[in-house]
Amino acid sequence: MLKGHQTWEFDRKPVILATGTVGGPFEANGELAEDFDLLHEDLWIGQESYEKAHRLLFEEACQKAMEKGGLRKEQVQFILGGDLINQITPTSLACRTLGAPYIGLFGACSTSMEGLALGAMIMNGRGADYLLTGASSHNAAVEKQFRYPTEYGGQKPPTSQWTVTGAGAALLAGEGDGPRVTSATIGRVIDMGLSDPFNMGGAMAPAAVETIESHLRDRGIDASYYDLIVTGDLGEIGHTVSLRLFEKHGTPIQENQYKDCGMMIYRKGQPVFSGASGPGCSAVVVYGHLLNRMKRGELKRLLVVATGALLSPLTYQQGESIPCIAHAVSIEMVKERGS
Amino acid sequence: MLKGHQTWEFDRKPVILATGTVGGPFEANGELAEDFDLLHEDLWIGQESYEKAHRLLFEEACQKAMEKGGLRKEQVQFILGGDLINQITPTSLACRTLGAPYIGLFGACSTSMEGLALGAMIMNGRGADYLLTGASSHNAAVEKQFRYPTEYGGQKPPTSQWTVTGAGAALLAGEGDGPRVTSATIGRVIDMGLSDPFNMGGAMAPAAVETIESHLRDRGIDASYYDLIVTGDLGEIGHTVSLRLFEKHGTPIQENQYKDCGMMIYRKGQPVFSGASGPGCSAVVVYGHLLNRMKRGELKRLLVVATGALLSPLTYQQGESIPCIAHAVSIEMVKERGS
Repeated sequence: MLKGHQTWEFDRKPVILATGTVGGPFEANGELAEDFDLLHEDLWIGQESYEKAHRLLFEEACQKAMEKGGLRKEQVQFILGGDLINQITPTSLACRTLGAPYIGLFGACSTSMEGLALGAMIMNGRGADYLLTGASSHNAAVEKQFRYPTEYGGQKPPTSQWTVTGAGAALLAGEGDGPRVTSATIGRVIDMGLSDPFNMGGAMAPAAVETIESHLRDRGIDASYYDLIVTGDLGEIGHTVSLRLFEKHGTPIQENQYKDCGMMIYRKGQPVFSGASGPGCSAVVVYGHLLNRMKRGELKRLLVVATGALLSPLTYQQGESIPCIAHAVSIEMVKERGS
Repeated sequence: MLKGHQTWEFDRKPVILATGTVGGPFEANGELAEDFDLLHEDLWIGQESYEKAHRLLFEEACQKAMEKGGLRKEQVQFILGGDLINQITPTSLACRTLGAPYIGLFGACSTSMEGLALGAMIMNGRGADYLLTGASSHNAAVEKQFRYPTEYGGQKPPTSQWTVTGAGAALLAGEGDGPRVTSATIGRVIDMGLSDPFNMGGAMAPAAVETIESHLRDRGIDASYYDLIVTGDLGEIGHTVSLRLFEKHGTPIQENQYKDCGMMIYRKGQPVFSGASGPGCSAVVVYGHLLNRMKRGELKRLLVVATGALLSPLTYQQGESIPCIAHAVSIEMVKERGS
């Protein structure tokens, strides 16, 4: 099962039976609006705080996944998830409603693939019949906590990114039709000494490159194995930095097979600076748009590399640079189960 | 592997090859001082902030476990861990130093057993040769974040608990001598509507009871199977509440085989109110004192039920009650490996 240093190859290849994706008003005006199961017209979603709206996003994504998978909530044995809010309370409170045994994760914007990797590990080990895993973020709740309340109208530099309001969840099963999780690479904490919290993409790029290169080495393949390698939320700046690093290391990767979720979700003209970010970003783009493309036969082999900046306002204030991480999960259209 | 609804039975029974436990000055004066590998004389541990001292606790616990297990850090494939600080930055920054691929967890004070359950799942699925899992807390860092800086000298009610300054880590291996992880039960989020953040034990007791009863039902055993069932940090009040719940449910459990880590770590006379708490509490008591008792042959079958209160200062301010959780892991002295 362990392959190389830090990669798991899943013999049983768990199936992503169904997914649920929920977005906010900014996402409804975005490039991928048609790939969402549910889009909300305003950021409050009828709740009395942004954090409670955040909780609801995750609840709804899980409910949509169960509904589309034809499962009642009693049939889901575990939920793995997390978010960026202090003590991941939106996810925990959503799981209070959802009722299944709950495994709380923190990987910042890498949470989507941290959860999918661990979820696939549990499925592979026959630790569940069905489980849900997902991640979410809410623009106004995250901005308030990490920077300033959006009501202040604070200015941002062009290196900054726009936190996605959205949640994506995947329902994993041992059997069934759908894309399968074939392997996962857990990333190391990489910190190149950057400390500007308005340039997360630049800080996270080396972590993405390290995880992709480790993944290819561990599996004994090159980048051309995949139809698409997609990073979580490097944004335009981080994406460019990562391409330069691949070039510097002599790792062949084609620009047309290497994309970033943070550059895909919004339309040109939406004021998102360097691109999108937030745990919800890769979760909604992968569990919505990209899996739809796989189901249409446009992609057969996908590597998702969710990137996370593991800082807090406090570590920044205490002069720490930004520790970053990236976890990679391969999702493939394969007919046959392995062993 | 899945047994019943929410329990994993580990066929390969991963071994706890070695552990590392580190404590602060209050723990050095406590009941279990002799069971620590390392005790610090002051809360700063030579660092310029309590959060940086907190990070160091976790680093040292992992280093001690590797040293005692005779492993170099390159041999450890994964680290699973978490803490209570916003965005679990002490654990993430420790993993920057330690260097192994890192899986960040958030389960509040249940993190120790969340990590041991997932770590054992990974070992059981042959996903690693060696991995580290642990949890930590720092009294002054946690008090500052959740309540008031300790320098304010704020008063506390007798229902409150004292956050442990300490870290405990376990080194898991597929082969070797030592206590073995035989099963794990993942808990649900339980919220009985209590909202007093100075009475966590009372809030967490129903979660502990739910997980213990689920564990016994899933494994088809009764409480007498274990020499000791130990909760994480219910404290005196939560412990009493949980005993009443067992009685009410008709679940037979003997008082002399049912203890709480939060009532074991300090001496009578230390001003800890209802007892100890914090992710470090169950981590140091189990990975220090209780495993030492197992190695001396005093205990053969141990069930650890780490309890967590998944609130934040913000959820409290927004009028939410306290969502709680408990994860249970059984550790047994068994000679033979299963299948």
